[in-house]
Amino acid sequence: MNMESNSNLLQNPLHGIIPPMITPLLDRDTLDVAGLERLIEHILSSGVHGLFILGTTGESPSLSYRLRYELIERVCGQVKGRVPVLVGITDTCFTESLNTANKAKDAGAQAVLLAPPYYFPAGQAELLEYIEHLTPELPLPLFLYNMPSLTKAIFEPQTIRAAAEIDGIVGIKDSSGNMAYFRQLQSLLQDHPDFSLLMGHEELMAEAVLLGASGGVCGGANIIPKLYVDLYDAARSRDMETMEALQKRVMQISTSIYGVGRYQSSYLKGLKCALSCMGICSDFLAEPFHRFRSEEHDVIRRHLEELGIVQKQ
Amino acid sequence: MNMESNSNLLQNPLHGIIPPMITPLLDRDTLDVAGLERLIEHILSSGVHGLFILGTTGESPSLSYRLRYELIERVCGQVKGRVPVLVGITDTCFTESLNTANKAKDAGAQAVLLAPPYYFPAGQAELLEYIEHLTPELPLPLFLYNMPSLTKAIFEPQTIRAAAEIDGIVGIKDSSGNMAYFRQLQSLLQDHPDFSLLMGHEELMAEAVLLGASGGVCGGANIIPKLYVDLYDAARSRDMETMEALQKRVMQISTSIYGVGRYQSSYLKGLKCALSCMGICSDFLAEPFHRFRSEEHDVIRRHLEELGIVQKQ
Amino acid sequence: MNMESNSNLLQNPLHGIIPPMITPLLDRDTLDVAGLERLIEHILSSGVHGLFILGTTGESPSLSYRLRYELIERVCGQVKGRVPVLVGITDTCFTESLNTANKAKDAGAQAVLLAPPYYFPAGQAELLEYIEHLTPELPLPLFLYNMPSLTKAIFEPQTIRAAAEIDGIVGIKDSSGNMAYFRQLQSLLQDHPDFSLLMGHEELMAEAVLLGASGGVCGGANIIPKLYVDLYDAARSRDMETMEALQKRVMQISTSIYGVGRYQSSYLKGLKCALSCMGICSDFLAEPFHRFRSEEHDVIRRHLEELGIVQKQ
Amino acid sequence: MNMESNSNLLQNPLHGIIPPMITPLLDRDTLDVAGLERLIEHILSSGVHGLFILGTTGESPSLSYRLRYELIERVCGQVKGRVPVLVGITDTCFTESLNTANKAKDAGAQAVLLAPPYYFPAGQAELLEYIEHLTPELPLPLFLYNMPSLTKAIFEPQTIRAAAEIDGIVGIKDSSGNMAYFRQLQSLLQDHPDFSLLMGHEELMAEAVLLGASGGVCGGANIIPKLYVDLYDAARSRDMETMEALQKRVMQISTSIYGVGRYQSSYLKGLKCALSCMGICSDFLAEPFHRFRSEEHDVIRRHLEELGIVQKQ
Repeated sequence: MNMESNSNLLQNPLHGIIPPMITPLLDRDTLDVAGLERLIEHILSSGVHGLFILGTTGESPSLSYRLRYELIERVCGQVKGRVPVLVGITDTCFTESLNTANKAKDAGAQAVLLAPPYYFPAGQAELLEYIEHLTPELPLPLFLYNMPSLTKAIFEPQTIRAAAEIDGIVGIKDSSGNMAYFRQLQSLLQDHPDFSLLMGHEELMAEAVLLGASGGVCGGANIIPKLYVDLYDAARSRDMETMEALQKRVMQISTSIYGVGRYQSSYLKGLKCALSCMGICSDFLAEPFHRFRSEEHDVIRRHLEELGIVQKQ
Repeated sequence: MNMESNSNLLQNPLHGIIPPMITPLLDRDTLDVAGLERLIEHILSSGVHGLFILGTTGESPSLSYRLRYELIERVCGQVKGRVPVLVGITDTCFTESLNTANKAKDAGAQAVLLAPPYYFPAGQAELLEYIEHLTPELPLPLFLYNMPSLTKAIFEPQTIRAAAEIDGIVGIKDSSGNMAYFRQLQSLLQDHPDFSLLMGHEELMAEAVLLGASGGVCGGANIIPKLYVDLYDAARSRDMETMEALQKRVMQISTSIYGVGRYQSSYLKGLKCALSCMGICSDFLAEPFHRFRSEEHDVIRRHLEELGIVQKQ
Repeated sequence: MNMESNSNLLQNPLHGIIPPMITPLLDRDTLDVAGLERLIEHILSSGVHGLFILGTTGESPSLSYRLRYELIERVCGQVKGRVPVLVGITDTCFTESLNTANKAKDAGAQAVLLAPPYYFPAGQAELLEYIEHLTPELPLPLFLYNMPSLTKAIFEPQTIRAAAEIDGIVGIKDSSGNMAYFRQLQSLLQDHPDFSLLMGHEELMAEAVLLGASGGVCGGANIIPKLYVDLYDAARSRDMETMEALQKRVMQISTSIYGVGRYQSSYLKGLKCALSCMGICSDFLAEPFHRFRSEEHDVIRRHLEELGIVQKQ
Repeated sequence: MNMESNSNLLQNPLHGIIPPMITPLLDRDTLDVAGLERLIEHILSSGVHGLFILGTTGESPSLSYRLRYELIERVCGQVKGRVPVLVGITDTCFTESLNTANKAKDAGAQAVLLAPPYYFPAGQAELLEYIEHLTPELPLPLFLYNMPSLTKAIFEPQTIRAAAEIDGIVGIKDSSGNMAYFRQLQSLLQDHPDFSLLMGHEELMAEAVLLGASGGVCGGANIIPKLYVDLYDAARSRDMETMEALQKRVMQISTSIYGVGRYQSSYLKGLKCALSCMGICSDFLAEPFHRFRSEEHDVIRRHLEELGIVQKQ
């Protein structure tokens, strides 16, 4: 495994705010290239510590492989080493995970993320064996990724404990929302200070970091990256007052921007709609989802005005 | 939509036994070509009414697209129109479903099957819209496919009712195991005698057909296709005595061949192991699963001997 | 265990139609006594083979123990041995199950039914031990009861196989809706012809009986008991034509009477509302549910008119 | 509602450590009276802020009503107003919840706790109506209780928001483990400083309190109440260093004492076994569970020795 050229950028452990970038689309198989460029610059302008593409927020499973590869190249080409780029390689197929990882390496990405294969439900022994087989073939360091509501499986604490011993596995992003689980991971990994523990729920990033997590993967950082970077800094330096003030704003975004409609997809629709209101990129969603209609669009716009993110018209 | 060349073979509605073929593999990305040829001839020798590839039994989500396409070509090339070939195009991505359907059409397949996209959970309105968008772009007739334990979503009865009105949707395979659901479908579709209702649980195929279903997708037909064809004929002609005798044998196969080990993957492992014992093809499974070890292999072999499928050594 | 006086009435195995009686209520803790008497006579007038009280349809978990005991006495007092009375003793507490069973015995009931304790999730070994401990202390024969959607646990096939060996356990009612499971039970119990296999889904009763089940617990038999008795007879004598005609009517009841509103409680509300429209008893439901409002009441009334169950006004 | 005599003791809001007491049993329907007395004194000796009986940890659903009532009287009689006593009244039946609440009031308890009725799954509107009907009839202030893994239902944030307006509802205990949910509650209730927010996961109590929760319901406080009281004090005064040291010990207890065996009941078995090793009370568990066998007992004993809770033999 030759990781030098790519992975110099990766801290040890990776810490800070790593926004999970949405994928700007013009239609189901066409990137919004101009929007993508604006979005990357918008995010990078605020001192984030990395960029994560092709995750759940990036609608990766809904995108064709052709488009995924194009995205990897465009993103790496534009980021140009300013921050590490992490690429989601979660797949139901081992070989396709590997293919995507190789594309990531070739394009200059620094690491890859993998949730459990999500069609057939593997047991913990099978999951461990899966990553034991996959990791040596990967050209980049690997982060594991828990997203049990969508993949049906979770990497249990003892599986993560064992994975932390495997050369090439450098961290985990946990989107389970189960903080008891997260604290158990922390407890089990206290002798692995170089293993990165990333919180996948932006509402919990600050308290996770306050008590020892490495950082967070915050979807809201697509909209206002600076808020999450500042909150991370406050949590890290244990400035409780600043932290509480910023956390309030984070909660406002979650309840307003992600809370429109009765859909499980409200989060994704809200994010993309907000970026469209801000003039950054298109709000097109890949099937099976669809962008908000004009009424919901207006609600999001009003929320953004109230939050001071866009100006009142 | 030009379906002539391919779809002449498709009855209206499709009925009978359509085995969901396992995918013979030498390793995770290599077909067992010789085993595949033997398996196809073994299945076709018994008067089955179709062949379904790239379903759950075919481990489709675990296979690379390259291998899926190779399989489609090899199978269609060898079947050569003797029975209709149905190809699974279930995917998390609309565009990849379309890509696979086009490969199926080009190779000479007769129809495609689609379960709901299985990463993001779509609501019923979104599912209906999904197939309303997809169907007009498909080059072959479409069967819907319920497999809720793996996809998290089911096509609800009213969704199927609406889908039956869409030009190009010709049937449904139901693997929910919920017979109350299946009977409700039948009741809602009684004015659509050309819509094919296929039972996905082989243990329930006979009673489904006895009371009006079109046929069944029986995994055990990889091993002894004649048993399921005979049972289908008995059920169709309401020969209760023959039906009960053959059903007993079906139950024996289910409890013995699929009941080894404590794994959710026992069915797949048992099927492939049995075909290996019979000298038909390799028992390699794609990740995240693995073939049985020698002890379990011996148990399967003993069951096959007791069932009279292989000779005692 | 002295079961003589009560259990003479119990056939061996129990077969036929055993309606799960709703519990007529005036308010949350008051029986509709006059309605109860009318309902019992209405049900018994049609040749049913038993009466099951205090099940899910009887809203048992929502009723106070005082009311449950009063119901047991009133029902047994009125049925007076015309058919066997089966009493639900499902509880989260072993001792309360026993208490209810003793009340049932004293009042003259013939058997009791028990689903798994439904707060703490017991494993299969614990479930088996549970019934091994409970059965010897019960004064009446025991039917097991699967209702996994509400109890979270199911008696797995091998547990039922073992339970069938326990003295005092005489049958099972399965409301899982999973016909593959039901057929597996049948297959495992073929050497226990005295063990009663009752289908809990009324839509599946006929096909279950056609292929060997003992009978069914049909909620719709609260409304038109004769339909289910006739369907049972047709299925038993394999009169397929009659069976199909009656089954259509059963499906009409299910889709119309149980299909009003978007509630998981539509079945219960529909049943009670229909009985109220028919002038038999009150439609009051115990919390957490509530009777239909007048609009939904009108829809049910119209369905009953269309079905010819009540006259047009 | 006359609450004076009982509820003087209740702070406004209730805060601090309120241990969920296990129920010492000699057999399935007999209290371990001497053990109960020792356990109460053991717990109260450490400055806890309340005592919660008849919760999940108290095995309430597995106990007969007779025993539940006896327990209420004995506990209140012995606590004698030293701390507020909270009594679980969760039930599938409205009337039985009321009965238990009245017993609690008569015995001198200060408040009651209620999780959603857990047999029939109520929707949010039904849940809200349920507590709107129940609360005015209760003789004591009411805490709501989330325990979705066992009750199937959760009080959603907007339901809690509405409940906080109802006179007589004074707080919530959340055992969902979902910290994002908990933070959303906090955010929605920031204008209700008198509404008590209690964390049900002991591993998360400290961080919940650090960021504004009222306190915690910590099962481990049956064993070493002082640890949780000290941790609460550290969190409240934002003494991060002490907090981190004590939190480590909390995690050790969770992973060692609750982690023996592969059972969902490991927590309950571990707690009772530890108290038995400490000579405080019997380790008998009500069905469907059973105490640890001697091997597992020895493992727990060794863990307690390592933790310095019992002396090495």
